[in-house]
Amino acid sequence: MVNLLLVSHGDLADGMLSAMHLIVGEQEGVVAISLKETDSIDELETRVDAAIEELSVSGSVLLLVDLFGASPFNICVKLIAKHPDLQVVTGINLPMLLETVMQREGQPVEELAKIASEAGRNGIRSLQELMDQAAQA
Amino acid sequence: MVNLLLVSHGDLADGMLSAMHLIVGEQEGVVAISLKETDSIDELETRVDAAIEELSVSGSVLLLVDLFGASPFNICVKLIAKHPDLQVVTGINLPMLLETVMQREGQPVEELAKIASEAGRNGIRSLQELMDQAAQA
Repeated sequence: MVNLLLVSHGDLADGMLSAMHLIVGEQEGVVAISLKETDSIDELETRVDAAIEELSVSGSVLLLVDLFGASPFNICVKLIAKHPDLQVVTGINLPMLLETVMQREGQPVEELAKIASEAGRNGIRSLQELMDQAAQA
Repeated sequence: MVNLLLVSHGDLADGMLSAMHLIVGEQEGVVAISLKETDSIDELETRVDAAIEELSVSGSVLLLVDLFGASPFNICVKLIAKHPDLQVVTGINLPMLLETVMQREGQPVEELAKIASEAGRNGIRSLQELMDQAAQA
């Protein structure tokens, strides 16, 4: 089974887990790490590295990150040198998290990264767009 | 200026705001409402309705919701009957929130809903996909 590590600014990653708990309950091998205002980048890197080490014991690891190009993302990319089997997907949202949690059994981590991206994009819907499409159909 | 109301399960909406604060600081007219385990759906509806009323005083309102088809979303859709100018976008993520915060000045709410969807989808990137694309280029 693929383990999931959520890495974000502020309480975003913890907030995602709290929403997930409300919908599908506690899940094994799903961990959140947050960069707080008082944390240094080095501290965050140490915490992310340690979490990857721990999660790697029981399976491969998919990192779901809040924002492309910012510090949490940059740390994850840097850690690929040490953990080459890591996969990283940015722009975490709840549809992405729920779909990866439900599909991670028996899925290679590369495949789960694709599932994460697709579920995340498909879960973004504008009510106006949907009504326009319905009016045209 | 368009005001933003984030509605979610658990602490997701508050977590999004906390990440936003870390990156761009406090923002006027950006409010989070969360459905907790002990809340009733009616209570949530009352809180969302009151927040829309309050935010509508100073501008139009864009609702950014965590998940299509679940209770927070259904409440928002129901409230369109009362507040017909509302726009609703689901699958909130940090790129969506940051882009709407930065672009909401002088933007009609319908246009901002499109910007939100596009920024949300564009912010979802898989490192593997990016490396595959770079290798093909």
